[in-house]
This record gives sequence, structure tokens and C-alpha cells, in this order.
Amino acid sequence: MKKHIVVIAGDGIGQEVTAVGQQVLDAIAAKYNHEFTYDTALIGHAAIEATGNPIPEETITKSKASDAILFGAVGHPKYDNDPSAKVRPEQGLLGIRKALGLYANLRPIKLFDELLSASSIRPEILKGADILFFRELTGDVYFGERGRKDEGNTAYDTMIYSRYEVERIAIKAFDAAMTRRKKLCSVDKANVLESSRLWREVIQEIAHRYPEVEVEHQFVDAAAMLLIKDPKRFDVVVTGNLFGDILTDEASQIAGSMGMLASASIGDTTGLYEPIHGSAHDITGKGVANPLASVLSVALMLDISFGMKAEADAVVNAVDSVLKAGFRTRDIADPSTPAEKILGTEQMGAQILQRLNA
Amino acid sequence: MKKHIVVIAGDGIGQEVTAVGQQVLDAIAAKYNHEFTYDTALIGHAAIEATGNPIPEETITKSKASDAILFGAVGHPKYDNDPSAKVRPEQGLLGIRKALGLYANLRPIKLFDELLSASSIRPEILKGADILFFRELTGDVYFGERGRKDEGNTAYDTMIYSRYEVERIAIKAFDAAMTRRKKLCSVDKANVLESSRLWREVIQEIAHRYPEVEVEHQFVDAAAMLLIKDPKRFDVVVTGNLFGDILTDEASQIAGSMGMLASASIGDTTGLYEPIHGSAHDITGKGVANPLASVLSVALMLDISFGMKAEADAVVNAVDSVLKAGFRTRDIADPSTPAEKILGTEQMGAQILQRLNA
Ligand SMILES: CC(C)[C@H](C(=O)O)[C@@H](O)C(=O)O
Ligand SMILES: CC(C)[C@H](C(=O)O)[C@@H](O)C(=O)O
Repeated sequence: MKKHIVVIAGDGIGQEVTAVGQQVLDAIAAKYNHEFTYDTALIGHAAIEATGNPIPEETITKSKASDAILFGAVGHPKYDNDPSAKVRPEQGLLGIRKALGLYANLRPIKLFDELLSASSIRPEILKGADILFFRELTGDVYFGERGRKDEGNTAYDTMIYSRYEVERIAIKAFDAAMTRRKKLCSVDKANVLESSRLWREVIQEIAHRYPEVEVEHQFVDAAAMLLIKDPKRFDVVVTGNLFGDILTDEASQIAGSMGMLASASIGDTTGLYEPIHGSAHDITGKGVANPLASVLSVALMLDISFGMKAEADAVVNAVDSVLKAGFRTRDIADPSTPAEKILGTEQMGAQILQRLNA
Repeated sequence: MKKHIVVIAGDGIGQEVTAVGQQVLDAIAAKYNHEFTYDTALIGHAAIEATGNPIPEETITKSKASDAILFGAVGHPKYDNDPSAKVRPEQGLLGIRKALGLYANLRPIKLFDELLSASSIRPEILKGADILFFRELTGDVYFGERGRKDEGNTAYDTMIYSRYEVERIAIKAFDAAMTRRKKLCSVDKANVLESSRLWREVIQEIAHRYPEVEVEHQFVDAAAMLLIKDPKRFDVVVTGNLFGDILTDEASQIAGSMGMLASASIGDTTGLYEPIHGSAHDITGKGVANPLASVLSVALMLDISFGMKAEADAVVNAVDSVLKAGFRTRDIADPSTPAEKILGTEQMGAQILQRLNA
């Protein structure tokens, strides 16, 4: 098959990890006789530096013409410390999600058995946990009206959902539940928020179409607690943009490290694949970033956007095999990991490629 | 000393646990020669059933006239399953927080050593963790304008903060940090939200007045992850109403169980003391609820509202001693707990009282 992929590396460790992701795509193309072509595009701080705009029009055009996007990360400490900055790297990420209509963000949370000891959670609590998050990605307080009043002394954001927005993500989540353990947990704060009450109403309605799916509703505070107390109770979790942001980062601890977590952002057209982790400027350029989230993002791309199940499995198996061989990046090492097994970004990539090329 | 306490038991297990809390107050009064008088007031579902109003005027009047409030919980599954209900138990809790100006919610998170094995987090990650949360309690999306548009098909809530609201909670948090390890972490989502950018600006300003305090800012998603990955890195955490709701429930896992966590809601006048846990209708009336969060709420009341340090310590020591003797309620038992050491609500209360009366 021929596929055209736009690589948007973005900021910080985005460059380092997408480089490995792209090598994995090349290895898959060679092995399975596909033809993958690439283009690159700017976003975030990198785009601001080059063009003044965190999301240049060209990036949108190229992305729309692609079969899939391999995304790195956005963000820069400069803006974090300057709350008054008008132009910000994150506008690039939010902008592309919106421009491409990527309303469903899938975040699978599953621990590789070899990483049981890398997590701060007890192994017996973790073992067998397998959660698929559906985070709504183009609505909520991320995109509602915001601003200042009272001469700048009051600031507001609008948390907002329409019935249609909830319906379409709900359908995706219920469909996924049908292919899994047929359990769905919807997370909201309906005891306080009107947008959550609409959310809950719509989930209850859609649930009628899926009588086989066992549905539960949890308030976001309770969900944040239950995720750590008993992650195995969850199968598919569906929630809004903000709650999904918080809960999936939290849930990264179930998978041992943020450095292991991939995500797929899909909508009606092309898909965007990115690690859950951010730009991590503290380790940028040091060659120590864990590239496995980018590698696993490639696996999601192969599976979801290209329908290449065998290829996707090959990538996941390569990751599994490298972990079984005892190799770790710093973030997933534990005190018992021998120093020579702790690899940098490129070395870890080389181990993956070696297995894919074998 | 003479003190007048209003007991607002509310819904679900609220009745059972505040009953134990009140017995503890009586024991302290007897032992230290204080005179505690009590009144009761209605709130939540209980108040709706009796008066149609989740927060009757009388409850506010009595509360304002009190030296402190011992609070149970609010909530009822009936409303949770009916997103369209106009009158809801939670309005009682939000209403009293607002009416009394209880803008600072203190949630200390500290594990009793004996409960190291009750948590789903590894003991070596937990041991020594000691976090004091300051959750802003009368602003944010809890109190902003909300409603429906488009014939009910769109719902919105307003996340809103004014400079003044952030300042006063920041000052409380920085003051507390000065009495502790002099570290403060402010949590927001300033890379996306305008209200968070104002929040961060104000924290940065107030920080100048406390040069000795080491300040860090974390995005809420990262904070949710770090709390589990490395709880010991936190000392004082200050955050908004919604983020505080989510993060403190999550952090309950650091203390082994929600059933152990007390909170103090303070402002300019009287203080309200309540467990972090909710009404827990699944176990209501079974006599198995853990009363220790209510007992520890009493300790906070004695300390913060009444300035009775020795009395507060006596209560905490009684809890510690009961745990050291191996007694547990169900929620904090682990597989190694012998059946005869697993106590119900009243029995656990009796163990505490026995030590206070000794
Ligand atoms: C960088 C930031 C805007 C983004 C978000 O909050 O969505 C990130 O945290 C994520 O989860 O993809
Ligand atoms: C019951 C609910 C409205 C309340 C809140 O969200 O504030 C509760 O979760 C709490 O944390 O006290």
C-alpha cells in the first residue's frame, strides 16, 4: 500500500522521538512491501520561531492531504512562565485538532508485563489492567469562549458541550466497548456542572442502543481515585476534553511511565498519532527520551488509519521483545536494572529496528 | 472553653460518621474541661425531603451563629441518575460554603504508618509523604454562570476567577508553607485556560512576598501524574476548586483510603469540618463506614477553630493507637488483617473513645 505521512515533530523531545517513529515506519514499509512517503510541517514553538504563527496554514494544508500524521509534542517553558503571552505553542496543537476535526482521542492504557516493577502502583493492583480511554478532543473548556473582564482582574473560560459533540464520541466509545469487555464508564461532574448533566443525558440515551454494554457513570473526583485504587475495574472510559486530559496523564502510572503511552486522534478524515507525554524540555537534546510512546503511536497509526493489523502487531511485539530482553530507557528503569541495559533514545530505537528487520 | 457546634450530618453515611465525631468531641470536653454545646441542622437530600430546599435558611442562620460546624456528607443516587433534576443535594453543600464564605479548603494528606499496606501505591513511594492541599472553595466553575442554549441542546458552565479570590487562598497557602517545609506547588492549566493564566500571575506576584518559599507551577495533568509517581515531592499544594476536587480525591490513595481523610473549610468566620468522602449510599445503614475521617475532622476543628493543640493531638494519637493495635474498618483492612480486627463504625468509635477516656 502507498501512504503519505506528515511528520510534525514540534518542540522539545518531539524531534528525537518522532525520528525513531519514522524509522519504524520505514522498517515496516520495507518488511511488508508498503510505500510510505513523508513530508514535514511546523507547529508550536518551532513554528512561532519560524513564522510567528503556532500553526501555519501550510501545516493544515499538508495535514489535510495526508493519510496520517506522526506528531511529536508542543510546549516551551518560556511561555509557561509568562502567563500574559498572547501567542503560545499549545495553540498549535489545539488548532490542528480543531482544524482536522479530530474529536476522538483514544488513549490505550496497558502495562507491558515486564514493566510491572516500574510503576509506583503495586503489581497485584496493576496486573491485567487494560483500559481504553476515549477523550473528547475538540470541545469543552478547551474551545469555549475565554477572556478577561474588570480591567483584566477577572478571567473566565467556558466549559461547553453540545448534544452532537457528546453523541459522536459516545458512539465511538460504545462501538469500542462492543469489541472489548463490553463495559463502559462515563466520567463527568454531573452533580455540579450543567455541561456534565447534558453529557450524562446523552450517554444514557446512546446506551439504549447498546443493551449489551454495561454502563456506569462516575464523578471525575471518584474516577481519579478509583483509577489508582482498582484500575482493573475499567474497560472503556469515555469523558470530556479536560477530565480526559487529567485522567489519562494520571493513568500513565498504570502503564509504568508516560514514556510508554501512545494516542490516536481521529475524526472523520485523517488521523493524528502522538505520545501522551509533552515536550519535556528538561531532558531535550540529552538523547535520553523514551521513544517507545512514539513507536507505539506508529503501531496505532498502522492499525487504525491504515488497517494494517499484522504490521501493528509486529511493532508492539518488537517493543515487548526489547523489554523482555531487559532494555529500558531511564524513565522505565528500576533499581534492579543493570546500567548497561539503560539505553538512550537512539539505542532504544536501534533495538526496536533490529527486531523489525530480523 | 465554651464552644457551640452545629452538627450537619446530611445524607448517607453522614449520620453514622458524625455521630462518632460528636462522641469524640464529648470525650474531649470531659477530659479537658471544656463545655461543648450542640445544635443540628438539615442539608442535602435530607433537607429536600423535609423542606423542599437543600439548604434551608435556618441551616445558614444556625451555622453563622456557631463556633464550628461538624459536617457529614451530601448526595443521593436518585439525582445522579436524573441529570435533569432541578433541585439537588449538592446545592446544599455548595450553598453553605458560599453563604459562610468558606473559601479555603484544607486537605491534609498523610499516611498513618500502620496503613502502608492498605494503599494501592508501593510503600517505598508512600513512606514519608505529607501533603497539605489548599483547594479554593467558593469560586471557579462551581459558581460561575451555567445554563442551556439551543433549545437545551448545548450546555455550558463558566470557569471564573478574580484576582482577589486567588490572592486570599494563595496567602493562606504560602503562610502554611512557611510553617512547613517551605515548598509550594501551584496547580493550574495555564497553557490553555485564561482563568489559569490569571491564577498563575497572582501566585507569581504573591510569591515575591515569600522569598523563602520555593515555588513551582504544574499543569493539572502533570500534577495528577506526579502525585502517584512521587508524592514525596509535594509539601503545600494550592489549586482551584475543580482541580482541587479531583486531585485530593486522587491523593486519598496516598493515605490508604478516602475513609481516612478529613478537611477543614475556613474563611473569615466560622469553620466547617468534613470528611473528604461522600455519602456512600452503597454502604449506608450497614454500620461499616469508616468514622476516622470524621474523627480526624474533629481534630482539625479543635486545632484550627478552637486553637486546642493538645486536644487535637490527643485525638490523632487515639487514631494512631487504634491502628497500631491492629484495628481496621473494612476499607483499610488488607488480606493479612484477622477477621476479628475488622470493626464496624460504632466499634471503631468505641476503640477511639476508650483511648480518649483512659
Ligand atoms: C499541551 C496541552 C495543550 C495538551 C492538552 O491539554 O490537551 C496535552 O496536555 C495533551 O494531553 O495532549
Ligand atoms: C459533593 C460535591 C459537590 C463536592 C465537591 O465537588 O466539592 C465533593 O466532591 C467534595 O469534594 O466536597
